[in-house]
Amino acid sequence: MIPVTGLCVGLDLDIAKLPAPYQKKADGLMAFGCDVIDATRHVASCYKINLAFFEQYGRPGLEALYAIREHCGQRYVIADAKRGDIGNTSAAYARAVFEDLNADAITVSPYMGSDSVGPFLEAAGKMVYVLALTSNPGSADFQRMIVDGVPLFERVISTALSWPRIADIGFVVGATNPEELSVLRKAFPDVPFLIPGLGSQGGNELATVAANANGPAVFNASRGLLYCDLTETCIQSIRAEAERLHDVLTNSPK
Amino acid sequence: MIPVTGLCVGLDLDIAKLPAPYQKKADGLMAFGCDVIDATRHVASCYKINLAFFEQYGRPGLEALYAIREHCGQRYVIADAKRGDIGNTSAAYARAVFEDLNADAITVSPYMGSDSVGPFLEAAGKMVYVLALTSNPGSADFQRMIVDGVPLFERVISTALSWPRIADIGFVVGATNPEELSVLRKAFPDVPFLIPGLGSQGGNELATVAANANGPAVFNASRGLLYCDLTETCIQSIRAEAERLHDVLTNSPK
Repeated sequence: MIPVTGLCVGLDLDIAKLPAPYQKKADGLMAFGCDVIDATRHVASCYKINLAFFEQYGRPGLEALYAIREHCGQRYVIADAKRGDIGNTSAAYARAVFEDLNADAITVSPYMGSDSVGPFLEAAGKMVYVLALTSNPGSADFQRMIVDGVPLFERVISTALSWPRIADIGFVVGATNPEELSVLRKAFPDVPFLIPGLGSQGGNELATVAANANGPAVFNASRGLLYCDLTETCIQSIRAEAERLHDVLTNSPK
Repeated sequence: MIPVTGLCVGLDLDIAKLPAPYQKKADGLMAFGCDVIDATRHVASCYKINLAFFEQYGRPGLEALYAIREHCGQRYVIADAKRGDIGNTSAAYARAVFEDLNADAITVSPYMGSDSVGPFLEAAGKMVYVLALTSNPGSADFQRMIVDGVPLFERVISTALSWPRIADIGFVVGATNPEELSVLRKAFPDVPFLIPGLGSQGGNELATVAANANGPAVFNASRGLLYCDLTETCIQSIRAEAERLHDVLTNSPK
């Protein structure tokens, strides 16, 4: 399958942060999410739905989750779930995300190894993004540990690429580390990356795009995009910011 | 807080595997789960609810999840969720599990580091079990890698114990590795362990109990207990098997 590339709009929807026009409850969350989708559909290659943000509100949150996934329609949807467990449990998570929620892709944790990621990789026509180097400060604790001269995050990529699969495989590589992204891109020129952390996590947009050197990648913006304007004009601002990000991703030198 | 110890009944409830008396749908799942709880309450120290098994059935599955958690009542409940994400997302997962589901403990993945586990560790009165050495074959892929002369799973324990916390902290240590359990128990004599894999994953009960050497631990049995009898007598069999496991944990030489 040709990997999806370009701007990913991350739906990290938070009732406490909803802009002024929206009611601060699950209905408002759903309305805001749908409006964000409508305002960005012309420039977004995909939507990343962060399951935690819905699960935290219990049953009303899950109703909002299903409604927002429905509103994405045919557009490519990444379930940002960071799942991973022993085989039969991962198989259940794969059914939850790929069948019940009907997502096209999922993020998974590599810590439990091949038979933990395997059930996700058995899903035909789906994409599995394995966590490699994440964009948070804690990525230094284990991901950057050196194992036989190679950082663990790089071992995760080379090892996971050797696992049998029917689904496609890609990796999460945080945008806060352009130098490391550049090294990984040179080592794995054709491997799809999901690059989170544009905007609020401090990723430098131009450095990140340059470091990726036209490799197959989706670049995610969540908080910096969703909460760029908390007033009545929020949707116009989100549309303009999404267009700006799309332009950066499309036209900046690489 | 005094750590919970003893037998943990793992509610890996699977519609396809339900014993004969139960309807093969979400209602049957709920009824079986409640009957298992009633049949084991006198010997189980706690229940481990595996979220994947409910999420795979969508909304009816989640209704069963809430009903089963409710049926556990005041008994200690571990949400087996293996969550872990950047800080604000982990905070949302913590709210979902500790507040909405009202679990007493959660399992989390260490791969994303301190600020990923941190929001769980901020929950007063709760327990956080960090994955260290799991009971599946894939644990060899990364968890046993040697970093500066020490296996990664041991680095995870020593590192995570240094993180600030309000909650209690423990670690998942698979029962399929009694030798490694013994080494870890000697290194961390007072640290709570969640030891899964009794029964169906091939853990040797007596060797496991001996290796733990009376350290604070809960020993989980899921599939080997729940599906030990698929006929009309299943609940009596589950009761007897839970009593047998409780007896092994209580009376075997250590």
